Amino acid sequence: MKISKLVGKRVKEAPNGAVLRSHILLLRAGYIKQVGAGIFSLLPPAQRVSLKLQNIIRDEMNKIGGQEVLFPVVMPRELWDMSGRYSSIKEEMIRFKDRNNHDMLLGMTHEEAAVHMLLNTATSPEDLPCMIYQIQTKFRDEARPRGGLIRVREFIMKDAYSFHNTQEDLDSYYKKVYDAYIRIYKRFGLKNFVVVEGDNGIMGGKVSHEYMEVTDVGEDYLVICPECGYSSNMEVAVCQKDENDQTVAGEMKEVFTGNAHTIEEVCEFLKTDAKHTAKSVCFKTANTNKLIMCFVRGDHDVNQSKVAKLVKEPIDYVDTDLYNLPAGNIGMFNLNVPEDTFIFYDKSLEKLENFVTGANKADYHIVNASMSRDVKNAEFVDISLVMKGEKCCKCGHELTLTRGIEIGNIFQLGTKYTKSMGLKINTPDGKTKEPIMGCYGIGVGRNLASIIEEKADDKGIVWPMTVAPWQVYLCPIRIDDENVNAISNELYKKLEKAGVEVLFDDRNTSAGTKLTDSELMGIPIRVVISPKTLANGQAEVTIRETGEKMFVPLADLVSEVKMMIQEQIEEIEKDL
Amino acid sequence: MKISKLVGKRVKEAPNGAVLRSHILLLRAGYIKQVGAGIFSLLPPAQRVSLKLQNIIRDEMNKIGGQEVLFPVVMPRELWDMSGRYSSIKEEMIRFKDRNNHDMLLGMTHEEAAVHMLLNTATSPEDLPCMIYQIQTKFRDEARPRGGLIRVREFIMKDAYSFHNTQEDLDSYYKKVYDAYIRIYKRFGLKNFVVVEGDNGIMGGKVSHEYMEVTDVGEDYLVICPECGYSSNMEVAVCQKDENDQTVAGEMKEVFTGNAHTIEEVCEFLKTDAKHTAKSVCFKTANTNKLIMCFVRGDHDVNQSKVAKLVKEPIDYVDTDLYNLPAGNIGMFNLNVPEDTFIFYDKSLEKLENFVTGANKADYHIVNASMSRDVKNAEFVDISLVMKGEKCCKCGHELTLTRGIEIGNIFQLGTKYTKSMGLKINTPDGKTKEPIMGCYGIGVGRNLASIIEEKADDKGIVWPMTVAPWQVYLCPIRIDDENVNAISNELYKKLEKAGVEVLFDDRNTSAGTKLTDSELMGIPIRVVISPKTLANGQAEVTIRETGEKMFVPLADLVSEVKMMIQEQIEEIEKDL
Repeated sequence: MKISKLVGKRVKEAPNGAVLRSHILLLRAGYIKQVGAGIFSLLPPAQRVSLKLQNIIRDEMNKIGGQEVLFPVVMPRELWDMSGRYSSIKEEMIRFKDRNNHDMLLGMTHEEAAVHMLLNTATSPEDLPCMIYQIQTKFRDEARPRGGLIRVREFIMKDAYSFHNTQEDLDSYYKKVYDAYIRIYKRFGLKNFVVVEGDNGIMGGKVSHEYMEVTDVGEDYLVICPECGYSSNMEVAVCQKDENDQTVAGEMKEVFTGNAHTIEEVCEFLKTDAKHTAKSVCFKTANTNKLIMCFVRGDHDVNQSKVAKLVKEPIDYVDTDLYNLPAGNIGMFNLNVPEDTFIFYDKSLEKLENFVTGANKADYHIVNASMSRDVKNAEFVDISLVMKGEKCCKCGHELTLTRGIEIGNIFQLGTKYTKSMGLKINTPDGKTKEPIMGCYGIGVGRNLASIIEEKADDKGIVWPMTVAPWQVYLCPIRIDDENVNAISNELYKKLEKAGVEVLFDDRNTSAGTKLTDSELMGIPIRVVISPKTLANGQAEVTIRETGEKMFVPLADLVSEVKMMIQEQIEEIEKDL
Repeated sequence: MKISKLVGKRVKEAPNGAVLRSHILLLRAGYIKQVGAGIFSLLPPAQRVSLKLQNIIRDEMNKIGGQEVLFPVVMPRELWDMSGRYSSIKEEMIRFKDRNNHDMLLGMTHEEAAVHMLLNTATSPEDLPCMIYQIQTKFRDEARPRGGLIRVREFIMKDAYSFHNTQEDLDSYYKKVYDAYIRIYKRFGLKNFVVVEGDNGIMGGKVSHEYMEVTDVGEDYLVICPECGYSSNMEVAVCQKDENDQTVAGEMKEVFTGNAHTIEEVCEFLKTDAKHTAKSVCFKTANTNKLIMCFVRGDHDVNQSKVAKLVKEPIDYVDTDLYNLPAGNIGMFNLNVPEDTFIFYDKSLEKLENFVTGANKADYHIVNASMSRDVKNAEFVDISLVMKGEKCCKCGHELTLTRGIEIGNIFQLGTKYTKSMGLKINTPDGKTKEPIMGCYGIGVGRNLASIIEEKADDKGIVWPMTVAPWQVYLCPIRIDDENVNAISNELYKKLEKAGVEVLFDDRNTSAGTKLTDSELMGIPIRVVISPKTLANGQAEVTIRETGEKMFVPLADLVSEVKMMIQEQIEEIEKDL
């Protein structure tokens, strides 16, 4: 490809509104163009990377017996009524009527279509297991698209669905996909990723894992044990709580605390420690509008995802004034709240004695409260956020917290979809049984951006050789020089003939512009030809990732470059 | 691939509602599954063919300098307001509001997105020409989806857009795409296709060509000159009209014709020939609701597409009673119609004398009318359908009519989109100029179905080697026989290792089922291993297309099969 004809321009200025490194670089280097909120066109270099990512995914899916199919983007409502998701999924899903006034939707995920494909075709136990997958456009109407390709509304996704006769078979296949995913990310050149226990969200099912690219700019919070490898999405992370071992002492009583409302203020006012307090956080259920009161030890915070799971619907913050609850003085005693209020006590409160909590009366708190003595029938559930320094639930080592971008996920779905959609296998004993499903997703664009997040430096993108849009940036300096021109054109032809993917900077422009563009675009190997290098019969070869420079005799250039490409690929794929 | 694990089943019965051969076979052979009206899932064999078609298209587009990109499926209204198509395209385009109440649409075609990609990036004449293309899902809300993959609502399409500084440059590039398309269809294995002058429909622009697979089941009507090669979509076809050379004779007068209403009835009643009559056909403009009266010679018919072009909007039939026009007796004299009525005289009426036409009075016609004497200021336009036996406009030879499926199209768009969307090139003289565009489409699924329409026989599908889902159907008969089992498994491994795409029929089922399935699925080469063939140390090899059978020693099988595959590919690609 000659850069003079490449569609898209490199620009110096970071565009307005772009904050994430990958977003800025994709725009600056001419890879993407925004068409709407969370909607992008991919320019030729990005599409080249995207196709390479897709082919790696395809290859690994095929290796574990996956069969590629194609499901529709647009589906009729009926299919999603069968699973119940037409109504259970909210604004994230686009719905519209077709010209015949028929309810249609844009598929955000394709469990329904996958089960539909097997209806009447998978009928006997011998037809299973099977795994079908597609690589296709999806649209999810995200409330807050952001970060370029990190959180978009439209994206290319590989989604796979497996069907099994038994849970054991799913378990064993799930492990194969688990491993295939690791191979995929390694082949993408990613190194900073971890696998964490996941939250199942709208998918249903129980076991799930998320593949997380660890980065400061990730939207997800992760809990990781550096000792035993326990790792989990913060949303579902658990830990060992330090035990409360005080004994009952003193009589519970109200004390005036005035303007002391936060835990810090109350502790200072009463000269006590946050570990000896119980704080309350109130929410409401988003759909059914019920009050939720959560009590946790003062040195902990409430994990909203865990609460949402307990009430089985999304939750929102609530205005406590509506319930005559005095913000800053709310506690678990003398409560006058609606009968259908959810009241949750976090496990951190178990056996807590001599603690301070709100008196449900402006300017007052209660002291010397005792969970065992004063709170009757409390059931303790896990609703707290795991915090840095807490103890690993598996090995007791101190946990670390980090952030990550979800670059893939795998789920065990159980029979939620096969049951609701009536996919039945005839068992040898004359009965029928629903297959057990797994589903497995990878967003292509988000991975493309994550690779940039991990690898880029202050000069620009750094593509791993396995996914680079071009392998070599052929960069003649002073192309107006007859010799430079002739030799670089000849090299261009020779390299392409040798199967090397070359971006040829055929512009008659300054060395600075060319070198800067080659770095910005992230092409792994740069070959510079100039009057100076030619004087020695050489080309200057630079490795983008390391900055390593070497001079190669022109006669050896094609074979040297091919060897470097091969070495870089082998380095990436070495422990697969 | 082992057929026992292949998702999808072969079935004997033609499913209800499927009429076209390709539709029936795709369903029977387990290639597609209907999800909604005009919406299908592709099962693994169909997706394999689809990917092969896509790769052939990609290869040919790249060869003529195309750069692959990806545009969004979902676009914001604003982009389409710029071109004016948000309002000009009707129910065919899906519109919806996103969660922020923003007007969005599903792209039916991507001229707007293509121009948008070049805004601010193509700014100087050196940036052109360029061609960008994508292979992506489109949704068009067709009123009458039919015929399986022939006319669907959702489909994968390759759409390409080129941008040029001058009309000459577009002309020359247009020719390159024209030729690339021919190579594409040839590589698909298609033989019965023609290129015809096309109708531009919603695309705007002037020059266009349609690639038509000639078949009795096509929806389009084609006019072809077997002598000089003139070919055209019936919608825009023109021909030499035989001249009217009578002279004026007799006085125009009304005569009673009673129940004679059709041209045939009137001719019989008045003992004249249809060539000496003028008939009228009435329509209305679909959007603005104006009356349209078309007059053509009695032996011709009106071409609605031509009329729609003249009135610049779609047209519908009209109830002539609403205008007090007596159906069966309508003519061009004594008309009492609204002032804004469109009145068109077909060229076939030019110089017509002594003709019969309706009297605009029930039970009466007019005789001895004369165009030159009695119809003042008539302008003659071409609104008639070309008919079999009419004379070629280029060489005068008799034209033939046929039907076809549109398998691709190419258009010269002019500056409609670059002008309306403000894409400007800075010319050396300090002015600006809008690039001239071409656009080029191929529907992947429709081509897949067209290949079946052309090649299939009464046993099933016949895939050309270049696009077959698998190259070889390995078919052990009596797989319960230890020897058959061992040798066929060994051959399966050897063939795959040699890079041959094999569908291995590993089922323990009857020879009949296996042979029938291999034919139904259309795999180009079948290799049968049975106790009988093994007794001679041979395999029986059958070519699906010709039915040719041969016995090949087992030791030579892999190399023989590879050679056959190569020969079949070469035969298809021989004159490219």
